Amino acid sequence: MSLLLSVSQLRGPLLSQLRPSSSIIVRKMSSIEQFKQSPHKLLVIPGPIEVSDEVLFANAHPSVSHVSPDFIPVLGDCIRMMRTVVDTAEGQPFLIAGSGTLGWDQIAANLVEPGENALVLHSGYFGDSFAECLETYGANVDQLKAEIGSAVSQEAIAEALNKKKYKLLTFTHVDTSTAVLSDAKSIVETVRRISPDTLVALDGVCSVASEEIHMDQWDVDVIISASQKGLGTPPGLSILVASKRAMQAFSSRKSRPTSYYGSWKKWLPIMKAYESGKPAYFATPPVNLIYAFHASLSKITKSAPSLSNRYELHREASRRIKTAAKELGLNQLPLDSAFAANGMTALWYPDGLGAGDIIPRLLKKGIVVAGGLHVDAKDKYFRIGHMGITAVEKSRDDVDTVIKALEETLAEAAAEK
Amino acid sequence: MSLLLSVSQLRGPLLSQLRPSSSIIVRKMSSIEQFKQSPHKLLVIPGPIEVSDEVLFANAHPSVSHVSPDFIPVLGDCIRMMRTVVDTAEGQPFLIAGSGTLGWDQIAANLVEPGENALVLHSGYFGDSFAECLETYGANVDQLKAEIGSAVSQEAIAEALNKKKYKLLTFTHVDTSTAVLSDAKSIVETVRRISPDTLVALDGVCSVASEEIHMDQWDVDVIISASQKGLGTPPGLSILVASKRAMQAFSSRKSRPTSYYGSWKKWLPIMKAYESGKPAYFATPPVNLIYAFHASLSKITKSAPSLSNRYELHREASRRIKTAAKELGLNQLPLDSAFAANGMTALWYPDGLGAGDIIPRLLKKGIVVAGGLHVDAKDKYFRIGHMGITAVEKSRDDVDTVIKALEETLAEAAAEK
Repeated sequence: MSLLLSVSQLRGPLLSQLRPSSSIIVRKMSSIEQFKQSPHKLLVIPGPIEVSDEVLFANAHPSVSHVSPDFIPVLGDCIRMMRTVVDTAEGQPFLIAGSGTLGWDQIAANLVEPGENALVLHSGYFGDSFAECLETYGANVDQLKAEIGSAVSQEAIAEALNKKKYKLLTFTHVDTSTAVLSDAKSIVETVRRISPDTLVALDGVCSVASEEIHMDQWDVDVIISASQKGLGTPPGLSILVASKRAMQAFSSRKSRPTSYYGSWKKWLPIMKAYESGKPAYFATPPVNLIYAFHASLSKITKSAPSLSNRYELHREASRRIKTAAKELGLNQLPLDSAFAANGMTALWYPDGLGAGDIIPRLLKKGIVVAGGLHVDAKDKYFRIGHMGITAVEKSRDDVDTVIKALEETLAEAAAEK
Repeated sequence: MSLLLSVSQLRGPLLSQLRPSSSIIVRKMSSIEQFKQSPHKLLVIPGPIEVSDEVLFANAHPSVSHVSPDFIPVLGDCIRMMRTVVDTAEGQPFLIAGSGTLGWDQIAANLVEPGENALVLHSGYFGDSFAECLETYGANVDQLKAEIGSAVSQEAIAEALNKKKYKLLTFTHVDTSTAVLSDAKSIVETVRRISPDTLVALDGVCSVASEEIHMDQWDVDVIISASQKGLGTPPGLSILVASKRAMQAFSSRKSRPTSYYGSWKKWLPIMKAYESGKPAYFATPPVNLIYAFHASLSKITKSAPSLSNRYELHREASRRIKTAAKELGLNQLPLDSAFAANGMTALWYPDGLGAGDIIPRLLKKGIVVAGGLHVDAKDKYFRIGHMGITAVEKSRDDVDTVIKALEETLAEAAAEK
């Protein structure tokens, strides 16, 4: 009995008393060493991404009270580790059950008051949606739209900022619909030069932990993300980090936040309580997913490779896939490699071939890629994700597997035509 | 190799090709027969609750695309099974990543237009919060407050409805802070008699699947819930079912929904698409949690015991715990047994004893109960949850375990005083 207690970290005395006969089975099957996720197709879409066994096992954690001393430091750690991921000393993280989209609502409802101006930089599908979200909560929104495959130029941003005073400027760091990477550092520089008080929000749903981000150094005010892309966790968590300037703008707003579930007035005391080791309640956090997120963040921030090495590994995976695609005659959506994301690749179908020639063939080889998403070109291109363990854990051979399958697929498709 | 393929349901050809040496391990560890959750304290708070191994294993499902043919019917089934759970033929379910609280936002943002009147029946902590949520989105809210331990009387409801026209009436079916069960059927009858068009929203976060609910027969317009209580799944899913009358009120609103993430304008096409077997995208659903929810709903709606037997088993577990508590001299918060929930029990501490005498002692015995939550009496009572497998799977002996631990705890505490 004493052995069992030590193995189960003193957490199962009751169970062991009630079911002594099954104690050996309990010990065997409930350890991460013994858990391996089911065989499955290789998921290389731009999110959700492949998730490690450790993270999935943590997602299968037994039920725990959201206010228990066991759970409080787990959420507290996640808050602290998110600061490390986006490279901020004092940014305020918010971790709330929801999809990445909820981050837009948080920004719109907490940082903009009805009637204030917001400028949305549009580099794909997600610009339109973010703009609509801001309007829903009463903002006056202008959009600057880049042509498909490019990002808005600094000149265009400067011109817009010179014309009108904006409370908020938003941009999509990597637009999942186009794989266009915006130059975050330059955007903030332009804003600070012309309109220093304008808050800058970076939509990092498809960039956090796969593209280099330095929140403090670049002076970004809000970063939003979601758990299922570079952060390597199943979907279901809306992640946001707000700068001091953003929190100042929030606390000096005249009207109350225009969302209830997304209100920082409700969530700020909760985040502060958990970080300081105390329980608090507003809405039940997604306990299991927080355990999973903790497992992934621990790997990302506290073990090799380092964050900067991770970014390099993402760049390397990206280079390899983009080079192979080029050799196969596949052109990228991004018009310039300076605009191309490192966590995903968007490729036009070659002349004479379409989705039906490529995607099902890859699927037969056990590879899941994504079709197009941009409204203007939905059926003309496809997308490959290479984030998280697919890019970082070379021993998985995911990048080679994808390249090989792509080569075979194109050869087969060409042969059939 | 062919054996492995059949075992892995043809889903792992790639993995098996890449890692033939580990194929036996893969087969062993990735099956539900081999998975057992870690030993842990027995969680008997009013949510999250104990979750079965099947549900946790489903939560550890390998990553799957949210628009893949594998996943679409899983979400589609969940939508269909939710109708069965709340006993409606044509109600429209919404399953969205979020906490139960998000259900309030959905109601406030989709069913009430700014300036319209709402009446909130208050039987505990959650009435105040629901009222604040409705006000956030512009409703004019009146509250009818019952004294602690009771629900609002039909007379008081009738009087309020006679005085003013309300677009919406809300009530908390089981208030988690007090264990008070409101009489849903009578409330709707009163509303239909006096103000037939008023929409009736039932907050069933702490009642769905543990208390009897017949949405169509009782003529309820909206039911909200969350995954982590009677529905036996980890937290992170906001669940809502809307009647035809509610959807009619929604589609005839003059202003647009006042939430973006919670907008039914966005979610209705998604729910309809998944239910009809087609992919659609608004925000990434919590894929793993949907697999887990599917496992739990399948058990609840498609296997023995039947739903009506489940309700009876909850009533039986509740009777046993409440009777044992009474014999130990512990009084319930609910003033009348007609007001007492069947999925949880709220008990005043006996004279001379407090939280410190009871909760840590139970914890030492491996039992996690919850403290008080109602602002007026937070430190004077505690709460025990008995929902889901704790109530239904008698072979677990959870109810006996709780009663025995409670008896020992009170004896020890009394001996020490």
